[in-house]
Amino acid sequence: MTVENLIRREILGITPYVPGKPIEEVQRELGLTEVIKLASNENPIGPSPRAIQAATAALAETHLYPDGNCYLLKAALAAELGVKPEEIIVGNGCDEVIKLVAEAFFRPGDEVIVADPTFGEYAYATQLMGARLVKVKGEGLGHDLAKMAAAVTPRTKAIFLCNPNNPTGTMNTRAEMEAFIARIPPEVLIIIDQAYYEYVADPDYPNGIEFKGDGRVLTLRTFSKIYGLAGFRVGYGVGDAELIAFLNRVREPFNVNRIGQAAAVAALADREHVARSLEVNRRGMAQIVRGLTALGLAYTPSVTNFILFATPYPAVRVFAEMMKKGVIVRPANIFGLPQHIRVTIGTEEQNERFLDVLAAVLAGLKESS
Amino acid sequence: MTVENLIRREILGITPYVPGKPIEEVQRELGLTEVIKLASNENPIGPSPRAIQAATAALAETHLYPDGNCYLLKAALAAELGVKPEEIIVGNGCDEVIKLVAEAFFRPGDEVIVADPTFGEYAYATQLMGARLVKVKGEGLGHDLAKMAAAVTPRTKAIFLCNPNNPTGTMNTRAEMEAFIARIPPEVLIIIDQAYYEYVADPDYPNGIEFKGDGRVLTLRTFSKIYGLAGFRVGYGVGDAELIAFLNRVREPFNVNRIGQAAAVAALADREHVARSLEVNRRGMAQIVRGLTALGLAYTPSVTNFILFATPYPAVRVFAEMMKKGVIVRPANIFGLPQHIRVTIGTEEQNERFLDVLAAVLAGLKESS
Repeated sequence: MTVENLIRREILGITPYVPGKPIEEVQRELGLTEVIKLASNENPIGPSPRAIQAATAALAETHLYPDGNCYLLKAALAAELGVKPEEIIVGNGCDEVIKLVAEAFFRPGDEVIVADPTFGEYAYATQLMGARLVKVKGEGLGHDLAKMAAAVTPRTKAIFLCNPNNPTGTMNTRAEMEAFIARIPPEVLIIIDQAYYEYVADPDYPNGIEFKGDGRVLTLRTFSKIYGLAGFRVGYGVGDAELIAFLNRVREPFNVNRIGQAAAVAALADREHVARSLEVNRRGMAQIVRGLTALGLAYTPSVTNFILFATPYPAVRVFAEMMKKGVIVRPANIFGLPQHIRVTIGTEEQNERFLDVLAAVLAGLKESS
Repeated sequence: MTVENLIRREILGITPYVPGKPIEEVQRELGLTEVIKLASNENPIGPSPRAIQAATAALAETHLYPDGNCYLLKAALAAELGVKPEEIIVGNGCDEVIKLVAEAFFRPGDEVIVADPTFGEYAYATQLMGARLVKVKGEGLGHDLAKMAAAVTPRTKAIFLCNPNNPTGTMNTRAEMEAFIARIPPEVLIIIDQAYYEYVADPDYPNGIEFKGDGRVLTLRTFSKIYGLAGFRVGYGVGDAELIAFLNRVREPFNVNRIGQAAAVAALADREHVARSLEVNRRGMAQIVRGLTALGLAYTPSVTNFILFATPYPAVRVFAEMMKKGVIVRPANIFGLPQHIRVTIGTEEQNERFLDVLAAVLAGLKESS
């Protein structure tokens, strides 16, 4: 008897996610001392000092369970976003909120539409609950909303829109979203993942929360990106109170840790940190774009804190060579793009080192080919 | 169109968990300044100072995602427990590990056996995946293992053993467990929840990990109890590597926060804190038992850091009156015991206050009845 005979067959289709290697593990393996990681779209200037201060103060009560209702964090978010606390669900990162959507709504026979390429957690959650994933590839690398709308069938349960999209850094405008949502039958859930919302400067970029009144639209946001709290795992969803209540039904009681809740409340109030993060990103994006252009590499213009570019060599090979020199990036083969690399915008020094190492690796590969 | 028509019907049976109120919320509602909470079996002496030190140091890297593989924590646990890292899965509290078991293995038509009364998360996870919960009530309040074994049918997928049991504080011995496991067909998973393992002094109490070689036995432990890290949400399961690999397949990539991982590694090494916690608990248990006896209240002898006792009045009424006086306990009606209360062993001062307030409330209720 082996436990393999006992598992749900549905989960055999799940491709286990391969997380970017922690810096410490790369250092251990390669004996490197100076490693920079530009692979997971983290904030290179670090967390808000006010968030760290709040977290430090909260440590004294680490022995107490977190507030299962995230009372203070939801109050702060409600005031910031102009919604009611009961229209918010907080998760152990947005990853958990995506999983809760699947657990509340997806069943075998359902179809779930996603773009291709896009963030991998939608596929994971869909397969977990035995629903069928429908991947829609557009002409370019961004979301082809017309084609996604056309993919709706009577079996469609939900559509995930990653806006801006990961790994492409592309966005859909307010007008595009409005037209799209109007075309989608009311019995189809629409999840708008806006993990990179705060980075987007384009005035035509929509706030997903404006579609809340539709009843079946859930907007996702996170404290892992511009707020610099990826280590704490705090993400949230905003939607109609009835929708949120169903997600709460499948939520574990103490899903968001106590210290992370305290840090998130403080980070939300630290406008100076957000402004500084935006400025570092704006300059860094220009720096990276200049560098990629100088190297003759094609990139996809990005509204986020990362950028996708093509290389003449297999991405995993470029990735491996760069890692040996202490720079970790994300090969986009896991997104179905075997010749692309996604790099996070870092500090000026990090960007410079990234561009130097990339140039050296590409030159080395050219020589050996 | 309402989203209610879209949800999985299975989840309608889930009773949303009502967490014990956070102290801050009770203070807000009642305008109290001095509130003690003996409702969630937390460690009254707080977290290990070494854990707080490690957490503080880790805060500087809060902007980085956690190690999705919990490399250092699993290495520390493996050394401590005498197992391999690949025989361990770490979760966002044991709650998450329980959910992962359900997601990996439970499907409609399966039966899952639990004791009655017992910890509520087994029911939640079972219903979440549409399996049928089979509750087995024994003669006393503890697990009736013979009756649980007799409840096995060809549809049985898993059995949860809470040992020591929550909310009763009772345990099953090594001999009882061995006999039980031998009786259970090999295609039935056995999950041994040992959240209170470290508190048990009885030499006949078994280490669930000794049954790992059986292949279908998973033992759960947590950092939320004696290690005083409930606020961080770190729990883990130990079992055969194949079983653990299936649980990892349904796990989100960054499920355990970075700071909690660092704190847990340090807490595990702080033997002095564990010893001190045990001593406070041993004395406190004696103090509470003396007090309950003096009040003429029947209690269930406990091997844990909490104790269940009966009151002459509805538990929710006693609970409400005690809360007004600033002492929060857990009414056991949520466990199907409407006349029982579960109280966590606190510090000497907290226990004294609990006993004083309990005596006053019972006297008041007697007068008004």
